[in-house]
Amino acid sequence: MNMLETYGQRIEKEINSYSFPLKPSNLYDPLRYFMTLGGKRMRPMLTLMSAKLFGKTMEDAIHAAMTVELFHNFSLIHDDIMDEAPLRRAQQTVHEKWNTNIAILSGDVLFVKAYEELSKSPGHLIPELLVLFNRTAIEVCEGQQMDMDFETRDDVSSEEYIEMIRLKTSVLLGCALEMGAIIGETNPENRSSLYSFGVHLGIAFQIQDDLLDLYGNPEKVGKQVGGDVLANKKTLLSILAKTHANSSQLETLSKLQVELNDSYKISETKLIFEQLQIESLCKQEMKRHYTLAMKALNQIETQESAFELEQLAEFLFHREY
Amino acid sequence: MNMLETYGQRIEKEINSYSFPLKPSNLYDPLRYFMTLGGKRMRPMLTLMSAKLFGKTMEDAIHAAMTVELFHNFSLIHDDIMDEAPLRRAQQTVHEKWNTNIAILSGDVLFVKAYEELSKSPGHLIPELLVLFNRTAIEVCEGQQMDMDFETRDDVSSEEYIEMIRLKTSVLLGCALEMGAIIGETNPENRSSLYSFGVHLGIAFQIQDDLLDLYGNPEKVGKQVGGDVLANKKTLLSILAKTHANSSQLETLSKLQVELNDSYKISETKLIFEQLQIESLCKQEMKRHYTLAMKALNQIETQESAFELEQLAEFLFHREY
Repeated sequence: MNMLETYGQRIEKEINSYSFPLKPSNLYDPLRYFMTLGGKRMRPMLTLMSAKLFGKTMEDAIHAAMTVELFHNFSLIHDDIMDEAPLRRAQQTVHEKWNTNIAILSGDVLFVKAYEELSKSPGHLIPELLVLFNRTAIEVCEGQQMDMDFETRDDVSSEEYIEMIRLKTSVLLGCALEMGAIIGETNPENRSSLYSFGVHLGIAFQIQDDLLDLYGNPEKVGKQVGGDVLANKKTLLSILAKTHANSSQLETLSKLQVELNDSYKISETKLIFEQLQIESLCKQEMKRHYTLAMKALNQIETQESAFELEQLAEFLFHREY
Repeated sequence: MNMLETYGQRIEKEINSYSFPLKPSNLYDPLRYFMTLGGKRMRPMLTLMSAKLFGKTMEDAIHAAMTVELFHNFSLIHDDIMDEAPLRRAQQTVHEKWNTNIAILSGDVLFVKAYEELSKSPGHLIPELLVLFNRTAIEVCEGQQMDMDFETRDDVSSEEYIEMIRLKTSVLLGCALEMGAIIGETNPENRSSLYSFGVHLGIAFQIQDDLLDLYGNPEKVGKQVGGDVLANKKTLLSILAKTHANSSQLETLSKLQVELNDSYKISETKLIFEQLQIESLCKQEMKRHYTLAMKALNQIETQESAFELEQLAEFLFHREY
């Protein structure tokens, strides 16, 4: 994946040379810290790849790419407060390392920094970029609110869950790609196809995440198997299980929520999921979105090949079960 | 002040007809609530008045005006969390009425809504509006961080304090006026004069606020006299007193910080302030900024008269001592 590395390196270079003011240090130190914690930088890479489809260089699209990456990091800082997460990328979260007030305010500044990057794009493209970015930012907040609302709800449907992950995580992938298409000054059809590719890819990716948590190879996934089950987290798996379970299975699932023996809790949950063919149902839904993503990608009319994006999509779904 | 009322009514009408989505209700109910708590709407009025100087109607400038008002309300929602304020405009703050997570997230959405209003301005003006608005939003955050940092510092100078209020509150008045000037498509000199008018007016206004807390007529000010003194709040008064006090006065001031008898605390503090002529020193600084504001206003070259803005400034400083 040499081409991917080239994009990744360009993004890293931009982030490493990105300079926050020195003062007030309580505002900017957390941002210097958080922005260099790493991450796949998948979103800004999508923007660069998308712009390249229409003959633009990485330099043409770097500010749009940074807009998406800065926004993504802002949303992580604020989400970590709301989720009371102690760690992010195996390091302390901002509200843990500093405090909640500093995490709120430095998050706010990072959000403006995203808009500042957007304002560095060519002037005639800014209005369109701004409309797309605003809509996306609002949707991401709506998705986060839905996710929080789900915690106290017992009747979340799989449709609602998919809508939540569409808003919370997938529209930003769509936005990253469409921003590249705006920089590329292509037609509305191509813009819309790239957006659609990103959204469906994002949904498929999130479902895969849910699946890997329980069915992934622990060595390759790099975290404890069944973590979502142990935390009683709402995932597509647990929601589908609840929808399809008979009354006896429902009762068992309900009892397992308070089970203290971890390995028993996981094995018994897996047993019911097996009876209900949950893994297969989730894979079907994942593949449906993956296929929709590929269909959207094939509709793009461009002189450059969309081969890189196809390669990226395949790469993302090569995580082993 | 009939003209002021006309502007105020136009803003109220826009806010009342402003429609947030119904769902997720935990995200948008707080915004419906907070936006209608009232307030002077001084900032958006400045935008409308500024645009009018260059022959623009209220309709031409209404989206820029709303940008500033929505941003101001976003910053209040987040500041109230950080300051742990239970009340805003005599009503519960968002984090009190709902919770901190909801206040963070609905604040974030309101911030985007400000940018959404900005994006409704004429396309060719959006890049300039965006650059000004981004810079201002960052400065407001920096001012809030300085204010929080000051709480645990004992050596804040009057210059640092003025810089803090310039960032935290005054640049937004400057921005509101300059946005009107951008909508009015006037020259850079006029833009800069209006910005400067707003910033100095804002600083003078904030110093007046500090003065009124201790020397205001309680019936006209509408709050307890000496509230800042009782809360040991850093104001221009307390900072200047500390700078000018001799060692014996310093000792008394330090003891008064933990004094439990409220009326004694206020009267003794006032006594030292009198010895050090603090009221007069603050008034000098206030008048200096008021004069700078008026000077900037007089430099504006326009066919319309800036009389309305002058009238507004005089009105704002007519609050009785």
